[in-house]
Amino acid sequence: VNAQLLIPAAGMGTRLGWGGPKALVPLEGKPLLAHTLTRFEDAGLIESAVILVPPGSEKTFRDALIETFPNITFKIVSGGNERQDSVRLGLDALAKDTEVVLIHDAARPFVSIEAIRSSIDAAQDVGAATVAIPTIDTILHSEDGESLGDTPPRETMWACQTPQTFRLEVIRHAHAQAKENGYAGTDDATLVRQAGHPVKLVMGTPTNIKITTPSDFAFAETILREELA
Amino acid sequence: VNAQLLIPAAGMGTRLGWGGPKALVPLEGKPLLAHTLTRFEDAGLIESAVILVPPGSEKTFRDALIETFPNITFKIVSGGNERQDSVRLGLDALAKDTEVVLIHDAARPFVSIEAIRSSIDAAQDVGAATVAIPTIDTILHSEDGESLGDTPPRETMWACQTPQTFRLEVIRHAHAQAKENGYAGTDDATLVRQAGHPVKLVMGTPTNIKITTPSDFAFAETILREELA
Repeated sequence: VNAQLLIPAAGMGTRLGWGGPKALVPLEGKPLLAHTLTRFEDAGLIESAVILVPPGSEKTFRDALIETFPNITFKIVSGGNERQDSVRLGLDALAKDTEVVLIHDAARPFVSIEAIRSSIDAAQDVGAATVAIPTIDTILHSEDGESLGDTPPRETMWACQTPQTFRLEVIRHAHAQAKENGYAGTDDATLVRQAGHPVKLVMGTPTNIKITTPSDFAFAETILREELA
Repeated sequence: VNAQLLIPAAGMGTRLGWGGPKALVPLEGKPLLAHTLTRFEDAGLIESAVILVPPGSEKTFRDALIETFPNITFKIVSGGNERQDSVRLGLDALAKDTEVVLIHDAARPFVSIEAIRSSIDAAQDVGAATVAIPTIDTILHSEDGESLGDTPPRETMWACQTPQTFRLEVIRHAHAQAKENGYAGTDDATLVRQAGHPVKLVMGTPTNIKITTPSDFAFAETILREELA
């Protein structure tokens, strides 16, 4: 299958106290995004990646990545204001013969090879898949943020991870429809589901965290040093 | 108001690699539970606490706590198999003139004084309250664990924290009813809500984490050392 990677990486590292693009924050001496891409390179299931970057930083990304990954072809594309804008621009930039696209957070460097493989299989099978894990925290439901509503059973609630993986026409259709209706600010798998298409769950791993805060960053360093993922 | 603290602490520290009661795992040289109780002592809003402990470890707890907290009276009580059993035993052990009970996880040492105060106010006002924070992760809904269902809007989902705080008769009624129906394994605020009683949300803090895994533990040490909570 012709599977391609799409990484929205147009955000800045402000919350991590870093002046440049968040995807290039150094983690144990290597840009965050390089850790993430290593997982996909090791999986050996994609040959090219479209990376959406902050406008003007194309060259910085190209320099940071090309020598590290001789086996992946990169298309570095100027991203949009919102994540969804970047994803849409990335979908437009994919090669015409792409069958399956994996959309993955730049800041999830510990995705498992098994999750990548299962995601591609599930997208071929059903058309759409998202990685997720059972929620550990108790999640409460409240319509108004004032008082507790009827909370669904814990076992029905899953924490969303990435990659979210789709047959190209499925995610393009969902994005076109979401653009018409006004984006709801949700993840891509939920957009596909809202467009009426089934989405398969693929089991993730607890270490497939998204690095957002300085404490996530500290945890990521621990994971790397102790080889926990 | 006569507000009393109830802490279910009957679990063992196995997941943290500790042979004794989890509540007594040392964190920066002090038992985890001592950190937690310090917050309540600093709040100055309770004068006694019922602590449910692993059967046989009553003396260990008494020795570990009494000298550290000269201003709080402890009632150390043998706990049950499940958390809900311990809570029920604790409710039975409360002084007859208790008006409001705060049920708090032993392993949440970074609760804010503001959350304690607001919880007592809310319980006096409405009868029941739980501390919670907006979810950061995207939560997905799936009935069968196989495919994605209709996910409620993100802003309606809250991550449950403690204390959960109740007028004594409200939580006793809810537990009696839950025992008749068979416990659903949920938190106490949800039991109260299932018994038909309204529950107010009180805003928590991101550092009010529950320490469960070694990585939570490492994060807790960082919080303490850098005085983040």
